[in-house]
Amino acid sequence: MTARFARDTAVRPLGDGRYAATIDPAWKVERPNGGYVAAVLLRAVTAEVDDPVRPPRSLTVHYLRPPADGEVEVEVTVERAGRRMTALSARLTQGGKPIALALVAAGQARDDAFSHDDAPPPDVPPPEDCPALPEPPFPIPIRQNFDSRLALGSPIFSGAPDGEAVTGGWMRLREPVPVDAEYLAQIADAWVPAVFGVTTERLGVPTSDLTVHFRRPAVDEDPWLLVRFRTRLAADGYLEEDGEIWDRSGRLLAQSRQLAVIV
Amino acid sequence: MTARFARDTAVRPLGDGRYAATIDPAWKVERPNGGYVAAVLLRAVTAEVDDPVRPPRSLTVHYLRPPADGEVEVEVTVERAGRRMTALSARLTQGGKPIALALVAAGQARDDAFSHDDAPPPDVPPPEDCPALPEPPFPIPIRQNFDSRLALGSPIFSGAPDGEAVTGGWMRLREPVPVDAEYLAQIADAWVPAVFGVTTERLGVPTSDLTVHFRRPAVDEDPWLLVRFRTRLAADGYLEEDGEIWDRSGRLLAQSRQLAVIV
Repeated sequence: MTARFARDTAVRPLGDGRYAATIDPAWKVERPNGGYVAAVLLRAVTAEVDDPVRPPRSLTVHYLRPPADGEVEVEVTVERAGRRMTALSARLTQGGKPIALALVAAGQARDDAFSHDDAPPPDVPPPEDCPALPEPPFPIPIRQNFDSRLALGSPIFSGAPDGEAVTGGWMRLREPVPVDAEYLAQIADAWVPAVFGVTTERLGVPTSDLTVHFRRPAVDEDPWLLVRFRTRLAADGYLEEDGEIWDRSGRLLAQSRQLAVIV
Repeated sequence: MTARFARDTAVRPLGDGRYAATIDPAWKVERPNGGYVAAVLLRAVTAEVDDPVRPPRSLTVHYLRPPADGEVEVEVTVERAGRRMTALSARLTQGGKPIALALVAAGQARDDAFSHDDAPPPDVPPPEDCPALPEPPFPIPIRQNFDSRLALGSPIFSGAPDGEAVTGGWMRLREPVPVDAEYLAQIADAWVPAVFGVTTERLGVPTSDLTVHFRRPAVDEDPWLLVRFRTRLAADGYLEEDGEIWDRSGRLLAQSRQLAVIV
């Protein structure tokens, strides 16, 4: 049986860089989740690149309006195919209306390049020893797809305004899939907002734009991923949220940043 | 007299969202600097939005190939104009070839929104007490446009591989301009690469993509800006560099992240 995430992000080629996909309600918060929409977009882009040794390295998505459940189309344009990297743009539309726009850089690895790793994971207990992420006060469909264990940060809505807006823990899909760029894009926007640790207000924080950098392929067989999200500045009605995703062996796999609108 | 930065990033409207601009050799490293190209793109986008209370909030640029000196064209598309935000895409071309692609979110402030500030500047001496950023071993034209004072981080090419790849200090244009989004985009990519603090190799690190979030308008009259750049992971032939830009009074104005290719 195909895992739900693979099924719900699948794309069907229509020719000329166009792909059909279906927005499934299982990935909603109130509206379809931005990480899920990013994964659908990226699935089409990866299909268009069609080169396993040239995976996505960078993805930026701008969200224009939420899609309704159902059919969408993704149009992918190869903007430049170079010796090492391919630059692409992609446009997700529904009934002809633009829903989300993306820019993607896909590129080959260079194994002999300079390396430096100053991105250790936080020191947290293993997932087996962490409590489940508390259930939200209203049903959030996407949360049901994950096993999520709270490992760090302030309690949600504890309203410690002088505290740090940091949250994180372990996540895995209940129906596991390989840890590819699409899955990492989803994970980059599936946790509770970090800002909830420093406010008692029930803020709405829809994503304006999300960037994910895919830094290393996953090699760990263990499906648990460790995530940490942090907001340093909420000002003028906007906040950023930075994310990091490690595998269980402590390798940083991806870095994300989103700008959210405070509504 | 118009300051060189204003002159060299100016755009001339051609109608239908198209703008002409001229890439000036004064803003080269070896090739035209990514921050400069971002500023030119953003100048056209800001002209197209044409609304001072809806400034750029987020800019992502993907670099496809370096431009030659001389004429370029920027084509700006308003993808969606909403009540609070406008989403735009932009394409910078030269002789019909794509040079750089951008996605931009412009948006109004909301003064009564939740705020949180956990982004203090590093504790460094004032610019008057900091030494000039050392001259590079070969001439870098863009460096001549700035007064740059080294305030933190490892010496360049000191090769402390276990150290932190952090660098920063004070910057101002020798011919000052108002601190707008275009200027901040330039500042986000005008310092010496942070990775140079942890290597003795003369790495080339051209930018694949650059994202800048413009968080607050500058209110400080003092033209000095404090910048800090950091690289946590260089792996598989790519590295990220995160940047922060504060005004002299310690307000965080912008956050940036770029993915660079290690060549």
